[in-house]
Amino acid sequence: MTWIGIDLGGTKVYGIVLHGDKIKKDAKRKTPTQGGPAAVVDTIAGVIADLGGTEGIKGVGVGAPGPVDHEAAVVRQAPNLAGWQDSNVPLGDLVSKALGGVPVFVENDANVGTLAEHRRGAGRGVSDVLGVWVGTGIGGGLILDGDLRRGPTGYAGEIGHTVVMQGGRMCGCGHLGHLEAYAGRASLEREARAPAAGEQRNMLVDLAGDGRMTSKIWADALEARDPVALELIDGAVGALGVAAANAVTLLDLDMVIVGGGLADRLGPTFVGRIEQSAREQIFAHGSQARVVPAALGDQSGALGAALMAADSA
Amino acid sequence: MTWIGIDLGGTKVYGIVLHGDKIKKDAKRKTPTQGGPAAVVDTIAGVIADLGGTEGIKGVGVGAPGPVDHEAAVVRQAPNLAGWQDSNVPLGDLVSKALGGVPVFVENDANVGTLAEHRRGAGRGVSDVLGVWVGTGIGGGLILDGDLRRGPTGYAGEIGHTVVMQGGRMCGCGHLGHLEAYAGRASLEREARAPAAGEQRNMLVDLAGDGRMTSKIWADALEARDPVALELIDGAVGALGVAAANAVTLLDLDMVIVGGGLADRLGPTFVGRIEQSAREQIFAHGSQARVVPAALGDQSGALGAALMAADSA
Repeated sequence: MTWIGIDLGGTKVYGIVLHGDKIKKDAKRKTPTQGGPAAVVDTIAGVIADLGGTEGIKGVGVGAPGPVDHEAAVVRQAPNLAGWQDSNVPLGDLVSKALGGVPVFVENDANVGTLAEHRRGAGRGVSDVLGVWVGTGIGGGLILDGDLRRGPTGYAGEIGHTVVMQGGRMCGCGHLGHLEAYAGRASLEREARAPAAGEQRNMLVDLAGDGRMTSKIWADALEARDPVALELIDGAVGALGVAAANAVTLLDLDMVIVGGGLADRLGPTFVGRIEQSAREQIFAHGSQARVVPAALGDQSGALGAALMAADSA
Repeated sequence: MTWIGIDLGGTKVYGIVLHGDKIKKDAKRKTPTQGGPAAVVDTIAGVIADLGGTEGIKGVGVGAPGPVDHEAAVVRQAPNLAGWQDSNVPLGDLVSKALGGVPVFVENDANVGTLAEHRRGAGRGVSDVLGVWVGTGIGGGLILDGDLRRGPTGYAGEIGHTVVMQGGRMCGCGHLGHLEAYAGRASLEREARAPAAGEQRNMLVDLAGDGRMTSKIWADALEARDPVALELIDGAVGALGVAAANAVTLLDLDMVIVGGGLADRLGPTFVGRIEQSAREQIFAHGSQARVVPAALGDQSGALGAALMAADSA
């Protein structure tokens, strides 16, 4: 059986053809920055054409950057897609129509990434996993007893918006002390550019200038032992350790998998430090829970979307 | 079908006979403070004799104060039972032998209390619930998709040992910033007796003297607007709000039920304040999750133990 998986991201739309166990083809196009959902649907259809079309394809899965109503295949919001201001877009129906009626399934990108790592990556053979995706923001997905936990409203897994420090740093969502405020790249950049950080020599701002403070810039500044970078990444490690420990304690998880652009760039040392921090906070003596790096890199989203489609059909 | 449920607590062993939907009888004895597990087994057998014995009884469920291996019916530790220093006590086998072979099932007390509230109390008709038990410590139990979540090692639900304040107050378990350090009665008493609190007028210590600072003393001191009591209970409300919000955000729960000796005594106002605090921290806009008081009072443990036995048989 053959499935297509699409990772709809803020900068690119990446697709794969999954046949049985194997990825047979891949293709990508730039995510349109204008034209809203209609332009995105056209781009997805274009990537699928690049993959060879839908002949012999059982269904298409799309991982979308925002909260999703999986049953209805509706994207509730997609704040990281330029030009997509619409709420409650029936993306599944729109893509299916553009493809002449092929079944299309939609799920949150962090959820499908976690599914891929559980089935084919770092979490193979383990039944209870939290995936934490450290990028511009912090996404999360939960596998409990081998299955994706969506929850009654589909919002389960949002570890980035759990509190690690009561009354702490303001999060992009408007609440205080959330993990994302300490460990998401956008929030780290805000802190690095804040006046308090600016009083010190600040390699991060020197390197980024007016541009985006990329994961590479963070890695370079850490390697040069820039004090602002060291302090902010220490804070991210501690916050990720608390959130990972809390999930393990509440749910008795086997494993926390840490991936996403910033974590991939900072590498296994970063993830190892998160594991150490988590261990210092975990109650259950003798917990065997591990914190490990994601294994699938950039492909987890598209692969997970294809696996999700196969599960949903 | 008829089941017996036993709530094994630090001060009393309370039992009920459950026939279908109805509690037919109840009985209690004091928990022995010497003699270890053997004395506790005798007391449980005594309560069951008071209930009329095991004729016609399908099985017995025991809710125990500590981590339990449910499959093996083993109590790993029971730090709140005087004279019980033993680890890994096969309580199910011991009680079954004392009763002539009736099947006996064992589960953590917070888990069975949550089960009872879900089936017969505040959580009826709701599929995803966290129970938070505010007593000497903080216990917790999780119902996901209608079933008790135990997790691979049986430690799931331990909300009391999740972090609400990174690097915060020391918990009885030795880690920093756990919920129990802010909202468990034993920890609140330690804070009230600490020198910093003692500099102010402190009705709590006046009332308790050298004795235990009971839930009633906390309620009286709050009613008299004692500043130390007000400040510490404010801290407990905030910490419980954070922990409740985190569980709702991570799991997409419908409901958090707050019970236990201290919460029952402080009443619906206390629980209402926790709900308000949780709402201020919850990410998912439009979350309908509620924080409500437990409805079954003292009976939840024994009733939940009987329901657990019926589920396990």
